[in-house]
Amino acid sequence: MITLYTWTTPNGRKPTILLEELSIPYRIEAVNIGEGQQFTPEFLAISPNNKIPAIVDEDAEGGALPLFESAAILIYLAEKHQRFLAPSGPARYKALEWLSWQIGGLGPMLGQLGYFERAEEKSEQALKRFREEAERLLNVMEKQLSTLPYLAGGEYTIADIAAYPWVRAAEERLKGALGTQIETSPALQRWLTLVGERPAVQRGMALPKV
Amino acid sequence: MITLYTWTTPNGRKPTILLEELSIPYRIEAVNIGEGQQFTPEFLAISPNNKIPAIVDEDAEGGALPLFESAAILIYLAEKHQRFLAPSGPARYKALEWLSWQIGGLGPMLGQLGYFERAEEKSEQALKRFREEAERLLNVMEKQLSTLPYLAGGEYTIADIAAYPWVRAAEERLKGALGTQIETSPALQRWLTLVGERPAVQRGMALPKV
Repeated sequence: MITLYTWTTPNGRKPTILLEELSIPYRIEAVNIGEGQQFTPEFLAISPNNKIPAIVDEDAEGGALPLFESAAILIYLAEKHQRFLAPSGPARYKALEWLSWQIGGLGPMLGQLGYFERAEEKSEQALKRFREEAERLLNVMEKQLSTLPYLAGGEYTIADIAAYPWVRAAEERLKGALGTQIETSPALQRWLTLVGERPAVQRGMALPKV
Repeated sequence: MITLYTWTTPNGRKPTILLEELSIPYRIEAVNIGEGQQFTPEFLAISPNNKIPAIVDEDAEGGALPLFESAAILIYLAEKHQRFLAPSGPARYKALEWLSWQIGGLGPMLGQLGYFERAEEKSEQALKRFREEAERLLNVMEKQLSTLPYLAGGEYTIADIAAYPWVRAAEERLKGALGTQIETSPALQRWLTLVGERPAVQRGMALPKV
């Protein structure tokens, strides 16, 4: 059995979507980061970087495996169940490329934009920096999706699973900074509909129930 | 033959280190990001996110493979040559976990700290934000390395290759913000010496020659 430690954030919903797609048994342990539950010794033993999501797979090769970092969790589950990540060839590395792009670029930049938007004191310099980076990255995504059905090519992969909750969150919560960029990007909208229609994505986006 | 498009930055030196470790033939194409060479149509065709590093492997499975994002390049080369990333089991996923931690956390936060440090106008709020995040992440790394020889455990992996140029750059260029934190962290210092003594690391850190 897999235990998923998570919360209602974009990073927290990547593994709920993948676990729903895989239809495997798992249980959720909600970690309320608004109440600082990510700093308890129990959680830090699993996730020393004090971030959700994290998993413990009791049935892993070599005994119970604790794992943090959403990208590592997605790769682990995709490889274990041989789905949503090709085992070799260009399709595999295009998926890892766009997964890395989300983890190292889109996620951190949207995350910082949200942070400075929510801050009481407004740093115009920081807001400009992260607004411009977010706009640039969303344009890169729009361009990629204007010639391909999914981020990494013809197939739905863990790269789409990683990006979807972030673009949805940006569409809903970053209107003040990004205006209607996402709503008026046709390829992004097509992809949001395509991915968002998947029943597992809908179930994963509604978790954890809190 | 592999062509590596890169520059003298921490992300740019991850693949030079790995390629030197692997002792495989490759050629370097320097992309001077100070002169905006990352925006040429030729480079954007390989790296649509306009970032170095990127590679083209002419001898990949299924034909020439262009690949951007340092993490994807490290995983690709490690899997192709079956070195510095275990093929399965906990060692594999611990390496991917700490690689992801570098890509999504340490790299972006040190990168933003550097950006706001170099900016002419000083945003105290942004500097405080990224100084605190950088200090926190370096403490997580110190703690991890105080019980294990390498980031992901007993073996030198692509997680160490990804983190090394960033910690070295922080030690050299972010003294204003971080003070002597890195110099006075004993486990980080032990690891910097251990990794830094590797001949391939020394060669990779001296590339690209410009």
